[in-house]
Amino acid sequence: MNGSDLTCDAFLGGLVQLWQPRRGYRAGVDPVLLAATIPAVSGQRVLELGCGVGAAVLCLGARVTGLTLTGVEREATYAELAARNGAGALEVVTADIADLPLMLRQRQFDHVLANPPYWRRDASIAASDPTREAALGEQTPLALWVEVAAKRLAPKGYLHFIHRAERLPDLLAALPNDMGSIEVLPIAARVGRAAERVILRARKSGRADFCLHAPLILHRGDAHVDGDQYCQKVRDALRIGAALPF
Amino acid sequence: MNGSDLTCDAFLGGLVQLWQPRRGYRAGVDPVLLAATIPAVSGQRVLELGCGVGAAVLCLGARVTGLTLTGVEREATYAELAARNGAGALEVVTADIADLPLMLRQRQFDHVLANPPYWRRDASIAASDPTREAALGEQTPLALWVEVAAKRLAPKGYLHFIHRAERLPDLLAALPNDMGSIEVLPIAARVGRAAERVILRARKSGRADFCLHAPLILHRGDAHVDGDQYCQKVRDALRIGAALPF
Repeated sequence: MNGSDLTCDAFLGGLVQLWQPRRGYRAGVDPVLLAATIPAVSGQRVLELGCGVGAAVLCLGARVTGLTLTGVEREATYAELAARNGAGALEVVTADIADLPLMLRQRQFDHVLANPPYWRRDASIAASDPTREAALGEQTPLALWVEVAAKRLAPKGYLHFIHRAERLPDLLAALPNDMGSIEVLPIAARVGRAAERVILRARKSGRADFCLHAPLILHRGDAHVDGDQYCQKVRDALRIGAALPF
Repeated sequence: MNGSDLTCDAFLGGLVQLWQPRRGYRAGVDPVLLAATIPAVSGQRVLELGCGVGAAVLCLGARVTGLTLTGVEREATYAELAARNGAGALEVVTADIADLPLMLRQRQFDHVLANPPYWRRDASIAASDPTREAALGEQTPLALWVEVAAKRLAPKGYLHFIHRAERLPDLLAALPNDMGSIEVLPIAARVGRAAERVILRARKSGRADFCLHAPLILHRGDAHVDGDQYCQKVRDALRIGAALPF
């Protein structure tokens, strides 16, 4: 990809710099919020499925030092940018999650995260850019993402997904029986609004009750107005890499 | 049951008077909240499974006139009280939901509601009073409650359950495939707390996306203090029979 087709964008107030295609899928706030919620500690192994240019896994690595970071990405353009963005700190495997290479199938991780494509194309219109469409359209069934993620977990490891809130029943239904301690963080644009996103966390062999947390509210106030602002803890997560524990 | 073993309690500020056992299971706020959320309109047929002394279905009937009300209750003591409380406006069928009589299996309803027993006895301690235990302990599997409710729905009819939030995955998993337009209302004690209850609504042959609503918050303030109060719309639902639409 020609240099002029790329932009270099600052995340977490510049802690993370990401090269990404000027056109096509571009990382937004969702991978950053997902990364902020993950309770990883130094020494743990982290795998992101469908990592794109590496936004989520690299934001996590910037907040928590001493992690071993691995990303899987099917689209070579994005995989190459993820490797470049990781600057040696991110192992990138170019592969389809439906057909992971043996070297990954033989390994286990303490955290597996994913921000899968959001849009089912039986009910929406595909993006004209094929690489952008690969990141937005659900070409691989969501249930397979969950199954592959759960399989790659070490004992007591955690799975973390962010998705549209409409897909929560599908995410729950896709969890294998050995996944427990399920927690859901609803994410709503404003107080009183239905959730637009959910973060789903589950633990291999976890035995705690299901927990539906209070929603994370993104914006202050009742409606979009000039000077509209993120709530303080969301702003801190996006701008200085603060954690969003739940 | 001897008269001195009963109390007559006012619900909805006295709109509904319920005779119930002094000891044993006694209706709390949950059936009243459930009734307040149900978008029934005059002329519709309503069935409550496990109606106890009739709290939910009679609160609904007090808010919406012109409904045809039916309750099923396994425990004869409660069924008799429900009939007495309904004063002719509630048809009460003494039956186990796992074995409904033919006259009910041949009928369909526009709304089926339930406030099933909350406690799984593989992980909690049974109540000493056997009738109270029948109302509190999950002697009939939750999945069967959902299945029986869905079966009794007319085309486009609605199912309404209130349960502990921990059981949301089980409620969702139990919904038959012909149930859609699923909506969840989390109910939390205070702002920022995890949900303690959920109300699940689903529609027969519904096709709308799943919706995770903003939580209904019960109490004002951050902690229990003297003079602790319900939030205005909860108080209106409990004290004057106002609707809680979602």
